[in-house]
Amino acid sequence: MSASKLNQKIDLKDRLRSTNFKGVCFWDISPILKDPECFKQAIRELAGLFKNKNIDIIGSNEARGFIIGAPLAYELGVGFVPIRKEGKLPFGCINVTYAKEYEADTIQIQEDAIIKGQNVLLIDDLLATGGTINANIELVEKLGGTIAGLGFLIELAYLGGRKTLNDRYDIQSLIKIVAPSI
Amino acid sequence: MSASKLNQKIDLKDRLRSTNFKGVCFWDISPILKDPECFKQAIRELAGLFKNKNIDIIGSNEARGFIIGAPLAYELGVGFVPIRKEGKLPFGCINVTYAKEYEADTIQIQEDAIIKGQNVLLIDDLLATGGTINANIELVEKLGGTIAGLGFLIELAYLGGRKTLNDRYDIQSLIKIVAPSI
Repeated sequence: MSASKLNQKIDLKDRLRSTNFKGVCFWDISPILKDPECFKQAIRELAGLFKNKNIDIIGSNEARGFIIGAPLAYELGVGFVPIRKEGKLPFGCINVTYAKEYEADTIQIQEDAIIKGQNVLLIDDLLATGGTINANIELVEKLGGTIAGLGFLIELAYLGGRKTLNDRYDIQSLIKIVAPSI
Repeated sequence: MSASKLNQKIDLKDRLRSTNFKGVCFWDISPILKDPECFKQAIRELAGLFKNKNIDIIGSNEARGFIIGAPLAYELGVGFVPIRKEGKLPFGCINVTYAKEYEADTIQIQEDAIIKGQNVLLIDDLLATGGTINANIELVEKLGGTIAGLGFLIELAYLGGRKTLNDRYDIQSLIKIVAPSI
């Protein structure tokens, strides 16, 4: 690989593609994931944003959140905790139920997933209206974890999710989208 | 960290825990994921098994497969392709329907996920009866991909999944379990 290619930063936003999927503008991250250089850059950029935050563990939502959160945990050398829909995790769990556009959703975390006082970084592929990440925060704080940051591959700024989050959190997103494309 | 600790290999099998979950013996990988050293060791061991196979891309099933496959793609410097339940992936997809214990399941991959001739490594957390991985193979081969290997964190040898797979595949698992624990 040439030195120029090594230093070249890919515009990740250019690699997203959107479509009308189930009536909403859906941003597809598959082109980023399947290109090794894009995928690596995305994980490294997120790692750079949080490497000095003394992260103990990363928590992510199934399923797409796992694709970003797990490699980031690997890169940062920290543990990984899955947050899943109700009924998927064995052993004792705690629940949070939150409102979605057309229904309520219940998500769970194992009650021994986080030790009180651990610094938890929550990572998801997408910040949309903020419902899921606020439910994630509630789960972590119920277990006595401290939110060390919230990181997203994509932020749909036009849906206002950031405004629903407490100002005290360190909120980072790699790709900001200001309007739907369809 | 002392030199002795650096060289110490963790017995990953010791970190698994099992429970009766929905009537079957369920092996919980959460203790491996949340311990940074275990998680790192698991991904590095899998990388070592496949690093000389000229892998182009890794495919994994939602949701737990993503937790192993995505960091492995990152470590090997290759792309990542999600294989999902029907109705989750946007844009054109191909489907495979396969029998499960109590019902049929349909999984999908995007039709542009794999370029004909690419070497595809399929990674999942678990090899059980082999139904899912055989369906994954069918999806990849329909798109013209070549199966370069099949890798699992856990193999439940007592369920015989390996016997359902063609001998020509390179099948690797980090943890082999010969009998249910409950």
